[in-house]
Amino acid sequence: MTDPENRCVLLNARPVGVPGPEFFDIVTRPADPVGDGEFRVRNLYLSIDPAMRGWVNNAPNYSPPVPVGDVMRAFAVGEIVESNHPDYAIGDRVSGTFGWQRFAVSDGTDVMRKLTAADTSPAAALGVLGLNGLTAYFGLLETCAPKAGETLVVSTAAGAVGSCVGQIARIMGCRTVGIAGGPDKAQTCLDDFGYDYAIDYKNTPDLDSALKHACPDGIDMYFDNTSGAISDAVFGHLAVGARITICGTASIQDWNPLPLGPRVHRQLLVARARMTGFLIHDYADRYPEAVARLSAWLDSGEITAREHILKGFDEAPAALQMLYRGENTGKLLIEVD
Amino acid sequence: MTDPENRCVLLNARPVGVPGPEFFDIVTRPADPVGDGEFRVRNLYLSIDPAMRGWVNNAPNYSPPVPVGDVMRAFAVGEIVESNHPDYAIGDRVSGTFGWQRFAVSDGTDVMRKLTAADTSPAAALGVLGLNGLTAYFGLLETCAPKAGETLVVSTAAGAVGSCVGQIARIMGCRTVGIAGGPDKAQTCLDDFGYDYAIDYKNTPDLDSALKHACPDGIDMYFDNTSGAISDAVFGHLAVGARITICGTASIQDWNPLPLGPRVHRQLLVARARMTGFLIHDYADRYPEAVARLSAWLDSGEITAREHILKGFDEAPAALQMLYRGENTGKLLIEVD
Repeated sequence: MTDPENRCVLLNARPVGVPGPEFFDIVTRPADPVGDGEFRVRNLYLSIDPAMRGWVNNAPNYSPPVPVGDVMRAFAVGEIVESNHPDYAIGDRVSGTFGWQRFAVSDGTDVMRKLTAADTSPAAALGVLGLNGLTAYFGLLETCAPKAGETLVVSTAAGAVGSCVGQIARIMGCRTVGIAGGPDKAQTCLDDFGYDYAIDYKNTPDLDSALKHACPDGIDMYFDNTSGAISDAVFGHLAVGARITICGTASIQDWNPLPLGPRVHRQLLVARARMTGFLIHDYADRYPEAVARLSAWLDSGEITAREHILKGFDEAPAALQMLYRGENTGKLLIEVD
Repeated sequence: MTDPENRCVLLNARPVGVPGPEFFDIVTRPADPVGDGEFRVRNLYLSIDPAMRGWVNNAPNYSPPVPVGDVMRAFAVGEIVESNHPDYAIGDRVSGTFGWQRFAVSDGTDVMRKLTAADTSPAAALGVLGLNGLTAYFGLLETCAPKAGETLVVSTAAGAVGSCVGQIARIMGCRTVGIAGGPDKAQTCLDDFGYDYAIDYKNTPDLDSALKHACPDGIDMYFDNTSGAISDAVFGHLAVGARITICGTASIQDWNPLPLGPRVHRQLLVARARMTGFLIHDYADRYPEAVARLSAWLDSGEITAREHILKGFDEAPAALQMLYRGENTGKLLIEVD
């Protein structure tokens, strides 16, 4: 079989902070050949995730940075079009770390999961039924350990992870308070994601008072996707026994050197609070359990998902900045052209 | 019975940071009468603890500040000399929050525990068999959850709590690294408290390199009594799955407003580390279990205690500054005159 023509988005230099479009080149070149024990996937949707900033920066991280000149690392969902692998057949749909390219060759190690009949939409496999939903599920249930009646605060509450956290907490009987940027997102928190209370931090001059009003008995759980000023305000309202999940740090542009902020030690001590760094990959052996529950909640309408789909590769280089500026109105995806 | 003459150390103004002797007055006055359901304890030893700084400052804390004009709040151990309480008899020895005074009247609510035949030394009831040892026991075993072979770092490693943490961790099969101030204390860590490695932070220009050398595979557990620069250095070496217990914050002079330091969010995230504020009072119903085990370790010589005893009330007003300057060579106590 002749190898098809591939389109790829390459990282062309080592950025600091969130890379703009100037750090990416779109190239057309022959696709890699498919060797023994490998298969070729044709990507349908590419995912844009906050974690991608960390993948390209040269700072300590849980995976080595994307080499300059390589295809940009990214989650994607696609369909297998050629296979020399006994476990993957032509026509199978898979999600995994296939990169910002039309065709990827895989030996299966970068597959997250095979889609099943429960996956009515391939795009959802990158959102609620992908790492966003799984992150929300395990980050909330395992490291926050919610109990009915407790108050949860979520930052980036209307985002792909945050919106799922808020909805799972509501299913668990918690009172949910979402912090989001802008009046539309705050309204989305209330209307689409069922938060009990939403704070538009961009138009709230006194975040401290707003949190006190929203959480008169203190904050039992904080699912943090931002760090920075939002996190600092939340830490002033921790209830005794509070649990904080550090899932992301979207508001911090650069971690090298470490930025300064208020020391949290005393606040944690007085509240006997627990603050835990969370990485979804540690739960890989439990993905099937979570996908089954999330899929059932999605089907029953207990969880709502919103998607923001950009059309074609030309949109990819600027997409990460768009995400960090908060301009997307749902899970940000690129539909492969 | 005539009420005896009492000597008391009173707080005379609201300090910021560590109060010096000018914040205390020593007065002689009649002791309070003993009412129904009360007893009088004659204190034998008064305790000097880092927590006392927080008790006098006007900052958020787990207990309200000592009112100006009141007897300084403090742990003490003494003997009951008069009793109208059915559960406490003359001659019983008790430890509790009896304050910096010769005689205290109590209804039993401020008693920590009655001493038993296992308490061969009343002073030990304020150290290894008091809140210091209990703090080490529960803070290490419950919030750090040590496993044999893991590496533990302790700050104020030669102190009353720290020395006990290091020794319990060694009993649990851990590798122990102590950080202490000055060559004598570092040597004490090795000679008296059985640490595998000791760092004298006052004479170590590059704490980061010293930690890398002491903990080549990273730090699995950090029992933090200091916050500040020592803590900042430790956070650069967290192993995956690290647990940090925030027990004290001795290096920070004042928490109002919150001092700035490097943000820890990214380091916790990359290491999937857990940082927990610890307060011993949450474990009050399990004190007997801990005292029994600590007492057995003390008897067998598996745990060594050092005491630094000051003689008489005149030493009390300057004692807290002495503790914070690190001039004591063991658990700091005042022998009541």
